Amino acid sequence: MGNYVGVIGMGVMGQSLALNIANHGYAVSVYNRHGQVTKDFMDTRAKGHDNITAAYELKDFVASLDAPRKVILMVKAGPVVDAVTDSLLPYLEKGDIVIDAGNSYFEDTKRRMEHYEELGVNFFGMGVSGGEKGALLGPSIMPSGDRDLYDRHLRTLLTDISAHTEDGSPCCDYIGPEGSGQYVKMVHNGIEYGDIQIIDEAYFIMKHMLGMTNAQMADTFEEWNNGRLDSFLVEITYKILREKDPETGDDLIDHILDEAGQKGTGMWTAIEGLKMYLAIPTMAEAVFARNLSAVKGERVIAAGHFPERPHCDVQDKRGLLENLEQAVYASKIMSYAQGFQLLAKASDEYGWDLKLGDIALLWREGCIIRAKFLGRIKAAYDDSQGKVQNLMLTDEFMEEIRVAVAGWRRVVAKAIEAGLYVPTIANSLLYFDGYTSEKLPANLCQAQRDWFGAHTFRRDDQPHDLSFHHPWEELG
Amino acid sequence: MGNYVGVIGMGVMGQSLALNIANHGYAVSVYNRHGQVTKDFMDTRAKGHDNITAAYELKDFVASLDAPRKVILMVKAGPVVDAVTDSLLPYLEKGDIVIDAGNSYFEDTKRRMEHYEELGVNFFGMGVSGGEKGALLGPSIMPSGDRDLYDRHLRTLLTDISAHTEDGSPCCDYIGPEGSGQYVKMVHNGIEYGDIQIIDEAYFIMKHMLGMTNAQMADTFEEWNNGRLDSFLVEITYKILREKDPETGDDLIDHILDEAGQKGTGMWTAIEGLKMYLAIPTMAEAVFARNLSAVKGERVIAAGHFPERPHCDVQDKRGLLENLEQAVYASKIMSYAQGFQLLAKASDEYGWDLKLGDIALLWREGCIIRAKFLGRIKAAYDDSQGKVQNLMLTDEFMEEIRVAVAGWRRVVAKAIEAGLYVPTIANSLLYFDGYTSEKLPANLCQAQRDWFGAHTFRRDDQPHDLSFHHPWEELG
Repeated sequence: MGNYVGVIGMGVMGQSLALNIANHGYAVSVYNRHGQVTKDFMDTRAKGHDNITAAYELKDFVASLDAPRKVILMVKAGPVVDAVTDSLLPYLEKGDIVIDAGNSYFEDTKRRMEHYEELGVNFFGMGVSGGEKGALLGPSIMPSGDRDLYDRHLRTLLTDISAHTEDGSPCCDYIGPEGSGQYVKMVHNGIEYGDIQIIDEAYFIMKHMLGMTNAQMADTFEEWNNGRLDSFLVEITYKILREKDPETGDDLIDHILDEAGQKGTGMWTAIEGLKMYLAIPTMAEAVFARNLSAVKGERVIAAGHFPERPHCDVQDKRGLLENLEQAVYASKIMSYAQGFQLLAKASDEYGWDLKLGDIALLWREGCIIRAKFLGRIKAAYDDSQGKVQNLMLTDEFMEEIRVAVAGWRRVVAKAIEAGLYVPTIANSLLYFDGYTSEKLPANLCQAQRDWFGAHTFRRDDQPHDLSFHHPWEELG
Repeated sequence: MGNYVGVIGMGVMGQSLALNIANHGYAVSVYNRHGQVTKDFMDTRAKGHDNITAAYELKDFVASLDAPRKVILMVKAGPVVDAVTDSLLPYLEKGDIVIDAGNSYFEDTKRRMEHYEELGVNFFGMGVSGGEKGALLGPSIMPSGDRDLYDRHLRTLLTDISAHTEDGSPCCDYIGPEGSGQYVKMVHNGIEYGDIQIIDEAYFIMKHMLGMTNAQMADTFEEWNNGRLDSFLVEITYKILREKDPETGDDLIDHILDEAGQKGTGMWTAIEGLKMYLAIPTMAEAVFARNLSAVKGERVIAAGHFPERPHCDVQDKRGLLENLEQAVYASKIMSYAQGFQLLAKASDEYGWDLKLGDIALLWREGCIIRAKFLGRIKAAYDDSQGKVQNLMLTDEFMEEIRVAVAGWRRVVAKAIEAGLYVPTIANSLLYFDGYTSEKLPANLCQAQRDWFGAHTFRRDDQPHDLSFHHPWEELG
């Protein structure tokens, strides 16, 4: 009798996933390119786990598994995935399954599925979110590949180890063919960039416009977390703001450098939105905000040249703080509206038939963006039998937006007056204003394009399938 | 004796370019896949031009040219370029030169250079801007490829037919190797998207916030065009606003549908900015604005759900109109600052050694974004010996920004209050505020990322090459 499943890659994520699998009663084999890493794991976190078997040669690793073999790769996205899969191939048999659980680019996953299928291996792409703790205690899991094989060999395992919602639904469901699982994970991350940046701007406004202390801000975020903004990211925010620095005894937040890093998935999401001809400003601006934060040296020099900040007097601080909660919540709705429009468009373009309400439920627990809010999105899709033009137009959210918009607008106008860089809260509002505008100035754009490039335009008093060119000026 | 150069593709751009070449005394052969198109050209615009020879077979077309043959392709970007080049190959000889003058993707140009070089053909990528009229009377030309071949065989021809600045400098210069010419043209187009959208938002503000008539707006844009905003796009804007509709006698602008089209070069530029980890919100938002305008049907439905627009009273309309000029001008500086940062980063990444001041001069005349302003950018680079961190920090622009910023800020805040979608003017200001902020809230972002993903952070009181991870909470 061999083990049920194997995990390759013993970084923190791979270790946690292996432990999670073992904790659910599955016998699991583990392997890492550097054997010492595996050994360290076996001597520490895996110590005493009868369900975990270490292998130090790929051959032994594969031999330790029952057929059809199920091998989960938790390795660095990119060429490493191919290198590992290629080195596995000689030991695998027809019917075996390789599952890439990293943040691979969805086009790579599609290519790999086709490539390895020719070589007799069933390749799956699988988005996994929840970080180290999620991987250990139950992540959100987004698998894609052959539906039948998923149902026969992966469903039970993956739903067992996934997070579950309060009512017991697993945060794991078959997403679709090709790289759709990794695509959905990518969009999850794009939305995550937006959520984070929206919160960070709220912090920025509280600190610089309302003059709040870290303790006051922590209390506010905790209060928000008891309401409709209840979410993992708001929860860790108030806890972060209360964290002391072991070195200095100061609040730790004040010693962390304001240069954000990134792994690129937010950038990919923004690029996908552009390629799909969508407006996804909240996500794109969250990426730009990280990029701008990262050039701290440039900013310091620029700040030296423009040292004066505009004065902005806030009379009604308590009111503005209430407005800020409205601004954050409404911005979050816009961010998800854009993200789900992207998923809908991708589903159409790639023929994936994504179940958008179910995807919202997958993110309800386990992942970084987990929040009560996701249950609302699921409800919005259920109410509409899946036919949602834009989340902002669903009964679930429309009334809340109507109530929030005046306060939201006040926050953005004030932040602009105060010279605060608040790109996601501001652009969420601009997106709302643009999307709900029957008239935009694109008539002038079309006239300009027709003038210099004879690109033609349509008319408001003629059928819209007719194009017109105006002889703006005769050529010399 | 054969002809000096050939042009393939007799669309409006190809026709105009052939006429331009002929008008400068060069004998030119023309060819189009569909002979009737060529024939029509010869019977109309080319009638009486001794310098223009039509060919109706590729073989004859090539045979009509002197060696080394110079063939300019003005055909649809994409597979057509390869199809035409492939069909030319059998007739070409070693040393012949094929020049793709379309809006090809720069990576495709690089691939083609390598591919065709193996087959013995010298391939050039060449950005051409100026639309139909520019192609006829002198476009801005951005050639890339082998420097030595350019100097020997193309420089004289291309500088002759290009636009020239007031002091006689040609708006054509060797850009660099690979697809750098098409890259620079792509960025030109990205900047063009920004320029257009900034103007369109000014129109939107004048119309809806200041209640101006088309005639009043035209007068204002004409006035602006006599000042520092002097540019082709502002010029056509005031002329467009005075144009009458031959059908109805109304102002034509009021019958043009507000759905903008696009050819994708703005999208490519935004994607490149993302890939380079830059903040390029003005260009990206100009693309999103087109995308949002294009879903008019969705907008009409959304407007029905949110019919109320906020009331925004403007007391000092004359003052706000002056502020608007400041907002447009400052936004333009930000847009170009982003565009030139992208060029600088691309030059580094791809090893192209782009001469940014010279590129500004190339755009001074002939192209769609031609403007007095480009001379200022050239001066900014000259003053700084090419070492520009960001155009907003050059002596050429800093003082103007300082003067403009209060009015600019007022315009954005008022537009936000009025519910007007003004993404490029607003995001140019946000970019300015972000870039000149020594502190951004990315410290919180790094704390959050370290919490859920152990991504580490840097500290303000430790060397910046050290990374720290905080044990935010012990794992369960």
